[in-house]
Amino acid sequence: MKYDVAVYIGRFQPFHNGHLSVVQRSLEVAQHLLILTGSHLASPDTRNPWSSEEREEMIRAALPANWQKRVSFIPIRDHLYSDNLWLTEIQQKVLEEAGEEARIVLVGHRKDRSSYYLDLFPQWDFLEVPRLEAVHSTAIRDAYFSGSEESNYAAALPAGVADYLTAYQQTGRYQWLRDEADYIKGYRQAWAVAPYAPTFVTTDAIVIQSGHVLVVRRKARPGKGLIALPGGYIQQDETVLEGMLRELREETGLKVPKPVLQGSIVENRVFDAPQRSQRGRIITHAFCIHLKPGPLPSVRGGDDAEKAWWMSLADLYAHEDQFFEDHFQIIQHFVSRT
Amino acid sequence: MKYDVAVYIGRFQPFHNGHLSVVQRSLEVAQHLLILTGSHLASPDTRNPWSSEEREEMIRAALPANWQKRVSFIPIRDHLYSDNLWLTEIQQKVLEEAGEEARIVLVGHRKDRSSYYLDLFPQWDFLEVPRLEAVHSTAIRDAYFSGSEESNYAAALPAGVADYLTAYQQTGRYQWLRDEADYIKGYRQAWAVAPYAPTFVTTDAIVIQSGHVLVVRRKARPGKGLIALPGGYIQQDETVLEGMLRELREETGLKVPKPVLQGSIVENRVFDAPQRSQRGRIITHAFCIHLKPGPLPSVRGGDDAEKAWWMSLADLYAHEDQFFEDHFQIIQHFVSRT
Ligand SMILES: Nc1ncnc2c1ncn2[C@@H]1O[C@H](COP(=O)(O)OP(=O)(O)OC[C@H]2O[C@@H](O)[C@H](O)[C@@H]2O)[C@@H](O)[C@H]1O
Ligand SMILES: Nc1ncnc2c1ncn2[C@@H]1O[C@H](COP(=O)(O)OP(=O)(O)OC[C@H]2O[C@@H](O)[C@H](O)[C@@H]2O)[C@@H](O)[C@H]1O
Repeated sequence: MKYDVAVYIGRFQPFHNGHLSVVQRSLEVAQHLLILTGSHLASPDTRNPWSSEEREEMIRAALPANWQKRVSFIPIRDHLYSDNLWLTEIQQKVLEEAGEEARIVLVGHRKDRSSYYLDLFPQWDFLEVPRLEAVHSTAIRDAYFSGSEESNYAAALPAGVADYLTAYQQTGRYQWLRDEADYIKGYRQAWAVAPYAPTFVTTDAIVIQSGHVLVVRRKARPGKGLIALPGGYIQQDETVLEGMLRELREETGLKVPKPVLQGSIVENRVFDAPQRSQRGRIITHAFCIHLKPGPLPSVRGGDDAEKAWWMSLADLYAHEDQFFEDHFQIIQHFVSRT
Repeated sequence: MKYDVAVYIGRFQPFHNGHLSVVQRSLEVAQHLLILTGSHLASPDTRNPWSSEEREEMIRAALPANWQKRVSFIPIRDHLYSDNLWLTEIQQKVLEEAGEEARIVLVGHRKDRSSYYLDLFPQWDFLEVPRLEAVHSTAIRDAYFSGSEESNYAAALPAGVADYLTAYQQTGRYQWLRDEADYIKGYRQAWAVAPYAPTFVTTDAIVIQSGHVLVVRRKARPGKGLIALPGGYIQQDETVLEGMLRELREETGLKVPKPVLQGSIVENRVFDAPQRSQRGRIITHAFCIHLKPGPLPSVRGGDDAEKAWWMSLADLYAHEDQFFEDHFQIIQHFVSRT
């Protein structure tokens, strides 16, 4: 074998026959395969329905017995706003598994629109693998979450994965994802009449005081029940700053006077990853507000928020997988700068 | 008389009977009236069709002979992004006309949604004047630019103004404004089907080198023929940074390599005044790119731009009244910071 270790990066939502053929090809050139499952600890949505653990279970169910020992799994977080953070995580975790001396090859399809990242690993060899043209995870998920009895989502899936997904349809989480999928579909359809694909504009407030961040629990879809930053769509006659202050007060009832809030803004930044929301293109203007140390001001839920509360930083990191869209990453961006 | 000078701030696009009654009331309490015509040197659009000079002519045509000497005009620029710049301009110009000792009263309607600015003059008395409820400049302009023969735009206008507007219909500028009005109306109608009023997102590049700014002449409506920054609507799959670089190259053919452009960004800022565009709510992400001194890189028009060229700063200030939307103010913001 030419290589000690092959590295295969993907989301595998879900793992299909195209992925399986890449695994097979990898095991022809390398002793061992590391499958890097992306979007680790992202809260579930219809694009990333299954956790890293669920995906490992699903993929193992698809692998023949004699491959099992030659394959291991490394979950990797998304870092939508920093390739360097993402590369650090991959480099460190692969080094830990493969060791300093390993001859490593990265496998993938360079023709893929989303695969510009393959050039980010000059230190490894690269193996271009053929691609099953007709098989796409997106189409499989659409069929699976459409809820239609006739939907043939299993056609391109290994039997083990198909069985896993069929059993999964009995879970409460499947029902939750179906409801989310319906909401998203309805939202996109409502906008399909627009003359150009719309771009939406929202604001978010990251209010930090004495090691606590002000968060809300979402009352409505999408992301019903998830933890989020206070924020929302801007209105026609307000600036982004005004919109942020309005949503903050509506959703949390925070009693700090407006001039104090405004005077406590330490940074603002635009978060514009094209895939950050399932509803369509949403660009958010985030403002970090640093309040003086002292007793935490009282807050309450309201409007679109079931409740609002001050979350300790320790709690925050313990609940990474429950944050709406990219809100965990947005908070992380500001927390690490102050 | 209680006051030496009354100050009346407005846009007067056009001056109507409601304005006339305020002038009359002002001359009952003050020896002299200063009419401050806002949006001075803004390029013409259907919201600000007439220059300060045209408005002075129009208003004088509406005033009885015995008032003429008691009224003078002060044109005031818009400063959408700085109340302080706007206040400086007003304070300085009023002081120059009225002198240090004058007893000054500000006249206006506090109930007006757009009149929060009346509180910005604590040094002057304030006189609340009654408002003719049925008369609105917006409705008058809509009727005037609709081009319909039956449109009764003149009903609420002093005879002198009505005559002025009727004669103005023979000018080329009137035709240009009518075409702009048609375009804007069509654009807004195309979006009227959307489930919520849309917010649009655009980018702009302010490329500065050795005392020159890179600008384009607009080929299409709105603002056909006006000078503008290279910029445009962002696409669904690009970040605002990528969108800015794409539009910059499409519209100017600037040959500087992308990494150099990106590495030369000195500042970026969101410009989000709710009224900055006639098409609807448009928020623009502006990037200031500072290139190293040296021969100006060659540029050419393309796409939506008739031509692109390097404008000297002296030229820039001489052409303030030809800049599209708030682009002059955006350039000014960045120019004064580097
Ligand atoms: N395109 C739209 N424009 C304006 N209002 C809208 C739109 N779409 C929905 N709404 C209204 O806003 C309500 C949603 O509440 P918000 O608090 O305004 O928005 P939210 O669902 O919280 O979305 C904003 C959140 O999305 C994230 O991408 C972003 O970071 C922000 O936190 C909906 O119920 C609806 O009434
Ligand atoms: N809402 C929209 N979304 C996407 N594309 C659009 C939209 N509306 C129009 N277009 C397309 O974009 C073309 C306009 O060209 P651009 O260069 O993209 O935009 P422009 O007209 O220059 O407007 C952007 C300019 O407006 C200013 O508010 C802003 O500062 C920026 O300079 C139109 O002819 C049309 O094809």
